[in-house]
Amino acid sequence: MKVRGVHFRTIWLKPDDARVVQIIDQRFLPHQFVIEEIRTVAQMATAIREMHVRGAGLIGAAAAFGMYLATLESIPLERAAELLKATRPTAVNLAWAVERQLQSIANLPNSAERIAQALRTAQDIADDDAQCCRRIGEHGCDVLREISARKSGAPVNVLTHCNAGWLAFVDHGSATAPVYAAHDSGLAVHVWVDETRPRNQGSKLTAWELGEHGVPHTVITDNAGGHLMQHGLVDLVIVGTDRTTRTGDVANKIGTYLKALAARDNGLPFYVALPSSSFDWTMRDGLKEIPIEQRGADEVRRADGWCEEQHAEVLITPEKSPAANYGFDVTPSRLVTGLITERGICRANEAAILALFPERVG
Amino acid sequence: MKVRGVHFRTIWLKPDDARVVQIIDQRFLPHQFVIEEIRTVAQMATAIREMHVRGAGLIGAAAAFGMYLATLESIPLERAAELLKATRPTAVNLAWAVERQLQSIANLPNSAERIAQALRTAQDIADDDAQCCRRIGEHGCDVLREISARKSGAPVNVLTHCNAGWLAFVDHGSATAPVYAAHDSGLAVHVWVDETRPRNQGSKLTAWELGEHGVPHTVITDNAGGHLMQHGLVDLVIVGTDRTTRTGDVANKIGTYLKALAARDNGLPFYVALPSSSFDWTMRDGLKEIPIEQRGADEVRRADGWCEEQHAEVLITPEKSPAANYGFDVTPSRLVTGLITERGICRANEAAILALFPERVG
Repeated sequence: MKVRGVHFRTIWLKPDDARVVQIIDQRFLPHQFVIEEIRTVAQMATAIREMHVRGAGLIGAAAAFGMYLATLESIPLERAAELLKATRPTAVNLAWAVERQLQSIANLPNSAERIAQALRTAQDIADDDAQCCRRIGEHGCDVLREISARKSGAPVNVLTHCNAGWLAFVDHGSATAPVYAAHDSGLAVHVWVDETRPRNQGSKLTAWELGEHGVPHTVITDNAGGHLMQHGLVDLVIVGTDRTTRTGDVANKIGTYLKALAARDNGLPFYVALPSSSFDWTMRDGLKEIPIEQRGADEVRRADGWCEEQHAEVLITPEKSPAANYGFDVTPSRLVTGLITERGICRANEAAILALFPERVG
Repeated sequence: MKVRGVHFRTIWLKPDDARVVQIIDQRFLPHQFVIEEIRTVAQMATAIREMHVRGAGLIGAAAAFGMYLATLESIPLERAAELLKATRPTAVNLAWAVERQLQSIANLPNSAERIAQALRTAQDIADDDAQCCRRIGEHGCDVLREISARKSGAPVNVLTHCNAGWLAFVDHGSATAPVYAAHDSGLAVHVWVDETRPRNQGSKLTAWELGEHGVPHTVITDNAGGHLMQHGLVDLVIVGTDRTTRTGDVANKIGTYLKALAARDNGLPFYVALPSSSFDWTMRDGLKEIPIEQRGADEVRRADGWCEEQHAEVLITPEKSPAANYGFDVTPSRLVTGLITERGICRANEAAILALFPERVG
């Protein structure tokens, strides 16, 4: 997607120096646009661990490029793999990308071939991620086009929560992909961006990427979505997911469930956009089975942002008040209108999901 | 209620100097406990306008004490009344308290009698507010006691939104009154405090007053309540209201509606605590009739708090991203389990409300 009018991905090989991987250091967004050069697998591990890069798809690609850097450094591949996998232990795509790299280069006879193959694999993983999101965008765009036609071309108002944008993937994003596809094809779209406390990935990242790409948007508090829906100001909700069961229960950033309830109460469609890698085919009951991470209380007690040209943090609560910080919630499948995948859109139930992914039957 | 172990109201006559009214300057909470001395009606007008004091009940009492100060200053009473009424034009209690003062002193023959009567009226208004909230607490406490019995005395988990606490009234509060009554009578109670973006009245004011009074509580993001309810961690919701129709539709701080939806989806009681002065007897359809204030976008784009021993504000969103800031939403009566008033608890429908307030029939 575009930044200051130029097309970017979130990670890429430096054009004039194939020994360097470049990333957008997302810690500085939306206040500074910083490109970081990564030259070693240790630097890539730090970038993943310290969240210079984040988001399922992007973490996978970053790990794959990390393994490529390890081949350049002639570091034992198993050691590089362990280093990368330890950075974000719960990120499914990370372990998957590292394993795919190990398999692709394990039996190659010499360093030059390993380097060449690791680069191809990393680029394939990044390209596949971008392709997958692009297809999600095409399928989701059909939904927006239909609503746009019903509204005689008046702007389609999408509400989204957190950042399931291109910054979380290599390009396009999941929840944002239909929006970018619609916008780029000339449909009028406007996005209500939930700020998404406590980390504000909505007001920091989603607002930034929509703004840079030129998509009309408005930041709102997480409290506001219900009121907007009651007053006809939202046409549909599209969110991403961290994990979706084979029955269609959706784990996503805390607060998603509240928006799904409001959508149902107002008769509005609630879509979840996801690459099929976000399905957990082993689970049937999201509420009972998906573990919900609890994070540090200080994220709730404080807020951070930009003050006098530098990063700053303010304490909001009383010094002694405790806080709880559940990272995700689970939206039951009964509240989900449809799942937008790279293979098409299906209803959120096991039969419909397996009809799209028949290789997962049984 | 208690602050550092000492009983306070939000406004009172200075014990050793009846020419001075004292208030808690709420702008500095929760980080500093500042008592402000108010000696003139102009100072009181400033305190109301600049939100040193806020909340329906407290604004009424403050205006009444402001009129008392005007009698001390020998300022023309009509001029004082206009000055006070202009500070927060939409605050119903403010105009009501000023009118009550005007009527109580208008026909008195001399300054000394006007001063004495204005003081009595101000103190009556403050006492009535506190009494009203105390009775709300007694009625609501019955609900908590019943839940506590069902749980064999395990802590009753109350979720509340925004600040309908004693800081918004003279004492006790509305939504918090049942909690304080239960806590003071020895019931185990724990409160989940929604932070309530954008102004964070929950994490700043409600958390502070509960903490000072010794009530166990935990601050959460506005996103978290649904997840807590899904997992059995909430027993009931109690919120306040800015305006409730005669049919039981409830206007309250933005985000209240989302919690009501989550309560219904999880089969949990959702109560609204209110002094009867918060009923708007002229309205029947809250969604259509209650005007919703839109406030400045910067409240959403920024967050403020405490940083290096002083107040500070950080910008969260991109510099150019617009934001919308709806102050309230309306929870339809169908989602409200009951209204806790000073006269008792009733269902949220016109017949039940009028049975409690028969003088409003017709």
